[in-house]
Amino acid sequence: MAFLGYTHEQFPKWVKKVEQFPVFLYILKWVLIGLLVGGLTGLGSALFLWGLHWATGWRGDNQWIIFALPIGGFLIGACYHYLGQDVVKGNNQLLDEITRPNRIIPLKMAPLVTIATIATHFFGGSAGREGTAVQMGGAIADQFTKIFKLDKYDRKLLIISGIAAGFSSVFGTPLAGAIFGLEVYIIGRMRYEAIFPSFFTAIVANYVTHHVGHELGIHHTDYFALFFDGLQIPEMTLENLLLCVLAGIAFGLTGMLFSKANHFFGHLFKSNIKYAPARPMIGGVVLALAIVLLNMNHGLDYSNYDMKYFGLGVPIISQSFTVEMHWYDFLMKTLTTSFTLGAGFKGGEVTPLFYIGSTLGSFLSSFDLYNAIPIALLAGMGFVGVFSGATNTPMACTVMGIELFGHESAVFIAVACITAYMFSGHTSIYNSQILGSPKH
Amino acid sequence: MAFLGYTHEQFPKWVKKVEQFPVFLYILKWVLIGLLVGGLTGLGSALFLWGLHWATGWRGDNQWIIFALPIGGFLIGACYHYLGQDVVKGNNQLLDEITRPNRIIPLKMAPLVTIATIATHFFGGSAGREGTAVQMGGAIADQFTKIFKLDKYDRKLLIISGIAAGFSSVFGTPLAGAIFGLEVYIIGRMRYEAIFPSFFTAIVANYVTHHVGHELGIHHTDYFALFFDGLQIPEMTLENLLLCVLAGIAFGLTGMLFSKANHFFGHLFKSNIKYAPARPMIGGVVLALAIVLLNMNHGLDYSNYDMKYFGLGVPIISQSFTVEMHWYDFLMKTLTTSFTLGAGFKGGEVTPLFYIGSTLGSFLSSFDLYNAIPIALLAGMGFVGVFSGATNTPMACTVMGIELFGHESAVFIAVACITAYMFSGHTSIYNSQILGSPKH
Repeated sequence: MAFLGYTHEQFPKWVKKVEQFPVFLYILKWVLIGLLVGGLTGLGSALFLWGLHWATGWRGDNQWIIFALPIGGFLIGACYHYLGQDVVKGNNQLLDEITRPNRIIPLKMAPLVTIATIATHFFGGSAGREGTAVQMGGAIADQFTKIFKLDKYDRKLLIISGIAAGFSSVFGTPLAGAIFGLEVYIIGRMRYEAIFPSFFTAIVANYVTHHVGHELGIHHTDYFALFFDGLQIPEMTLENLLLCVLAGIAFGLTGMLFSKANHFFGHLFKSNIKYAPARPMIGGVVLALAIVLLNMNHGLDYSNYDMKYFGLGVPIISQSFTVEMHWYDFLMKTLTTSFTLGAGFKGGEVTPLFYIGSTLGSFLSSFDLYNAIPIALLAGMGFVGVFSGATNTPMACTVMGIELFGHESAVFIAVACITAYMFSGHTSIYNSQILGSPKH
Repeated sequence: MAFLGYTHEQFPKWVKKVEQFPVFLYILKWVLIGLLVGGLTGLGSALFLWGLHWATGWRGDNQWIIFALPIGGFLIGACYHYLGQDVVKGNNQLLDEITRPNRIIPLKMAPLVTIATIATHFFGGSAGREGTAVQMGGAIADQFTKIFKLDKYDRKLLIISGIAAGFSSVFGTPLAGAIFGLEVYIIGRMRYEAIFPSFFTAIVANYVTHHVGHELGIHHTDYFALFFDGLQIPEMTLENLLLCVLAGIAFGLTGMLFSKANHFFGHLFKSNIKYAPARPMIGGVVLALAIVLLNMNHGLDYSNYDMKYFGLGVPIISQSFTVEMHWYDFLMKTLTTSFTLGAGFKGGEVTPLFYIGSTLGSFLSSFDLYNAIPIALLAGMGFVGVFSGATNTPMACTVMGIELFGHESAVFIAVACITAYMFSGHTSIYNSQILGSPKH
């Protein structure tokens, strides 16, 4: 192990004999790096969330902006085409660098994806935010490879920590973020090389976002309060266990559907439209038309348009904990999000996956079969379950469910996430995930 | 994949095309097996806990029995020497069968270890119970290898599920049990092949133990109530984060000390005493003498003897959440437990590890440095932290901490468990753990 240019071999013999000595240096090193990477990523996340909050609010007050979606699309497309060809692969590029290291992630990935995501939400596209935060974290982290002259092995830990920091801070779930970083680049395995750096950095980033966010007047959605409002968690009986497995199957298949739809639209645009900036522009035309068509009852009175399938969709997620959703809500969101992202708008997939899952879970509660499981619990299971299926990260999703909804529902959440993982097939929203262990 | 003798190749072509079809059969199969293995293991755990409860109670009323420790030791030693040579390796034997499959675990492992553990506690040895439950679960599970004619791959999942079921049901922590099964046989990695079987079986086992235990009048210790009694979880500031890392270092080193002491006494007895039944007999003499010496103030008035370093020690664990423990409490328990087990008495290591960790955590709160962290939280962090260091299962320990103490302390617990894992070196209480990824 190298410590800031000093290698282990240079230590005196008696020191090398004590295994804890290099571990202590390792910890010192990653505490230092974790403070830097976590601090910067946390700061970035707070600013990003603030920008997102502003964009979503502004659009709410100025709904006419949706007619500018093609222009927004073109701007985003042109930005990446002329300035960001080498960072356009986004999350997949980070995963590639973990498993097949090639070259340092350019720092510009961070501002480009942040601005493009805020623009996507500003104009009314349907997207998420974890991709943005993860890319910001990864790109910031990788800059320290040069600064600290880190070797290949350390660089891997560094990128994982950056991903963990981004995910942790954008959702306010430090443990899920840390596990996501460890789990996301390989299907069916978790390796612990980066376990300390990843957890430490994720916790620092979350701390910084929390406090800077507080100053900026933004807060993570308090799902716990929404979820637990009067909720009585039922006992995990054998019957409920089988019902959770059944729900998990639905979540897994939906996660797979989302992945496939994502790839379908991505491929559709790429193979039919050569000039990259034209893709989100034409996509923007279609999205704007779709919004108008979905609001036919309002005619051209755009200020009253219902945007439930566009933007982040946090209000609908919150609703799904108490109100039974329609069977088509999760399908519509799948369509709008995969189309938005496939066309080349920017943002993450995870908040839409929360939306899709919680509305599906909420819909399941309309079946008599699910009478014994409260609607909030089903929505919560779906919230993380579909995400687990689409990303193949069952542990991160389980822990996220516990962080957001409390340990009382942990067993329900775990069964949903794990069954969904089993049933989503060997697909993923991340093409660059490598297969560690087949699922069956 | 084979399904009860029917192989995947025998299915029609169109069926094979849909990836979810074999997954569905896989799920059906493991639901069935999980109900059987989980049900039987859960029943066994309930009876075991009931026996343990009885033995501990009886000893409390009849403290003279400690003078019979040598006889008890001889009986246990003779039992294994004459009836159980092929199951004496216990937990390590199970881990070996997962990584280097050789031959079916004899069912007698289950009754032998159960009776020997109850006897150990009856006579006043210092030991735990997870080893017993894990061996019971593993031995019961492996019997289904023959019954269902399972292949090597499935057998591995089966043994993991049995381990998960045993651990889950004996502590009432289903998710930690499931993760323990996935995590324990290999250091530094977690593989997901067995993720569904392991979680499903663990949940079933816990359910059965809970309900059968209720009928028998025994309950898992409610650590949550003990822990949360008036507790205000502090914020995870950067200062507290570093304090958690520091505490984690202490927990990790203590975990390593426990592993080394365990191996030391095991080796000491084996290399000096050829005749196996004589080891726990001589060990029993020493233990009885030690008890008398520790109670010199009571002379031979054995009914007033303080047995705080012997037996399971649950009352001391509970105390450590509110009362500051001495610096020597965790060391004494390390000594008595490693001596008891090294001599050939039976039982687990985990409840003693909880004891050692929670008393150490409780002692740490006597330092001014730790003023900002409540004693209960420090004890809770140690409870799972030392266990994490001694067994190299940081994820299972983190999740166990959450299941027992609530998600509010999750970040504190995670940092303690992960740092302890880093600092315990490449030692383990399980010799048969293989090294998947080095820790640094």
